[in-house]
Amino acid sequence: MSNCSFSSSDGGIRPIKYSNAVLSLIDQRRLPTEEVWLEYTDYQEVAEAIRSMVVRGAPAIGITAAYGAFFGARDIKAENHAGFVSEFNQVCEVLAGTRPTAINLCWALERMKSLVRANPDQPVGNLKIGLEYEAMAINEEDIRVNMSMGRHGAALLPDQVRILTHCNAGALATGGYGTALGVIRAAVAAGKQVAVFADETRPFLQGSRLTAWELQRDNIQTTLICDNMAGYLMSKGLIDAVIVGADRIAANGDVANKIGTYTVAVLAKEHNIPFYVAAPTSTIDLQISDGSQIPIEERDIREVTHVGEQQLAPSGISVLNPSFDVTPARLISAIITEHGAVKDNYTEQLTAFVRKGR
Amino acid sequence: MSNCSFSSSDGGIRPIKYSNAVLSLIDQRRLPTEEVWLEYTDYQEVAEAIRSMVVRGAPAIGITAAYGAFFGARDIKAENHAGFVSEFNQVCEVLAGTRPTAINLCWALERMKSLVRANPDQPVGNLKIGLEYEAMAINEEDIRVNMSMGRHGAALLPDQVRILTHCNAGALATGGYGTALGVIRAAVAAGKQVAVFADETRPFLQGSRLTAWELQRDNIQTTLICDNMAGYLMSKGLIDAVIVGADRIAANGDVANKIGTYTVAVLAKEHNIPFYVAAPTSTIDLQISDGSQIPIEERDIREVTHVGEQQLAPSGISVLNPSFDVTPARLISAIITEHGAVKDNYTEQLTAFVRKGR
Repeated sequence: MSNCSFSSSDGGIRPIKYSNAVLSLIDQRRLPTEEVWLEYTDYQEVAEAIRSMVVRGAPAIGITAAYGAFFGARDIKAENHAGFVSEFNQVCEVLAGTRPTAINLCWALERMKSLVRANPDQPVGNLKIGLEYEAMAINEEDIRVNMSMGRHGAALLPDQVRILTHCNAGALATGGYGTALGVIRAAVAAGKQVAVFADETRPFLQGSRLTAWELQRDNIQTTLICDNMAGYLMSKGLIDAVIVGADRIAANGDVANKIGTYTVAVLAKEHNIPFYVAAPTSTIDLQISDGSQIPIEERDIREVTHVGEQQLAPSGISVLNPSFDVTPARLISAIITEHGAVKDNYTEQLTAFVRKGR
Repeated sequence: MSNCSFSSSDGGIRPIKYSNAVLSLIDQRRLPTEEVWLEYTDYQEVAEAIRSMVVRGAPAIGITAAYGAFFGARDIKAENHAGFVSEFNQVCEVLAGTRPTAINLCWALERMKSLVRANPDQPVGNLKIGLEYEAMAINEEDIRVNMSMGRHGAALLPDQVRILTHCNAGALATGGYGTALGVIRAAVAAGKQVAVFADETRPFLQGSRLTAWELQRDNIQTTLICDNMAGYLMSKGLIDAVIVGADRIAANGDVANKIGTYTVAVLAKEHNIPFYVAAPTSTIDLQISDGSQIPIEERDIREVTHVGEQQLAPSGISVLNPSFDVTPARLISAIITEHGAVKDNYTEQLTAFVRKGR
């Protein structure tokens, strides 16, 4: 069994492989200098892989958690439905608790749980088989959804375009192809002349380590900059559009994404540059009305004070390390989903798209 | 002979020491983990120290260059005035060519040259003695000027204030006390409750390595953040004022400063937070009418792709590494100098301040 139904030439690496009940993840902490694949067959280890950012990116976290939920389900001893459900919910709770901001994690686990709920009469053995297929379906759908999003997004771009992106919303953040980088791949595939500027994205350096790496692999023209250079480039007229991904989108169109996204959005507004968010409908959280309710993860301060073993700051200094920020809908030119781009009336249109399903 | 007429308790470390014709610089590339002092007695080596950023910060570069000019002058063999002047101008040219953006470098060298010009009848031996004293005077004046600037700046701040600063405009960037951090030191000395947020300032990390280090030494409450977190903090209402230094100020009040300063200024405007620039009049360049004419240094891309020996980006990736950007006067609430703060009519008032001298 393999989910690799799209070859790498269709749009970048597939960071999540599943075959013969083994989940393989490329260790994103060791890119770009080492390509190491880690194998998982246990849900607790999958949870730790998400927590420690072996895998990151909202859609990729969702997919990985779905496989983790299957591993957890498979290892449940209970043979009656109620016992199975009780243990399975505990498995999902552990996986859901790994990262707080990306809603795709909850979305994928909810899909796994709803399969169980929808089949109260199935023997536990059948549920386990169904959960394995559901995880694979979530994985494969994600790639198709990203390609669809790419087409909708590419249509918004001029034939020659210099695009700034922040963090990694690429193949590595998804099942493959990417959200923001999927739009870029689709624009390139459509024959547009695209030059990408990639923010390095401190502290975890997803831009320099991951975005630069995967775009270079695909021969897409990419220039790396530090986060604090984006304003300068815009002031020099060197950026035509900004495209980023999202970790959670509130009903009103407010977007939580990697720390620094809000700053880029303010800069884009100051320079009249369109600011696009590319995200699947699984990133939309209709349960919350606006971005102020999105939980923002604070991560270990060592991400800021050290790079590897190298110490960058004096010992004992206070540090803040919020991992995400919220960009208000008023700063967003369009939210690009697999069903099309939304430019206004966010609540109404995002609700309609979520109801359509994937 | 020592320039240490102010003890460290008066405002932080003195990064430039001069005694018995030996210049000692704290190696700012190795802070905060190692305090290593390097000694210089040769102008070519001083030039290399500026180029390689053993010493950095516009005023500190100026002071260091002045000592370098003395070393160069001392070693000139010519005994007639014309021969001496010709060789001395070459020495100054080498020193002036080390970094292009900070105007204090040219200002200090011009002061050294004007001493020679003003004394055409002095024997060369006397000129050499005079140049040594002039370099020491530039050094000592800088500390006094910073303290004066500190008082003017502190008067602009409320009694409780959370200040964001970018890069290091501290004792380490000057003869001592600092420009932006001098204002902070003066506010603390005046009994104000000050909390500092320090941008780490990629790629050279002057914020995490230098600002955090020197403020921690002085027991000033400091929290380190990544550059891309400033917008988030402002959106949460956690910043009351921004204070930065400057590398060159055009006649119209446009300010060149460390890359990322412009972005912070745009963010401050978006959040109605006052944005202050603290710089001595030696930073003002009346020769240029606006910021578009300030040369912006591009530095080695390795500063972006590596931290120490650790590689952060894929080999062969394109990188931009502009070291400075220009913040237009319209985004600046006040320019704080040793003669007072300028809030409008920049051209007129900056010209008057420069004519006053230091």
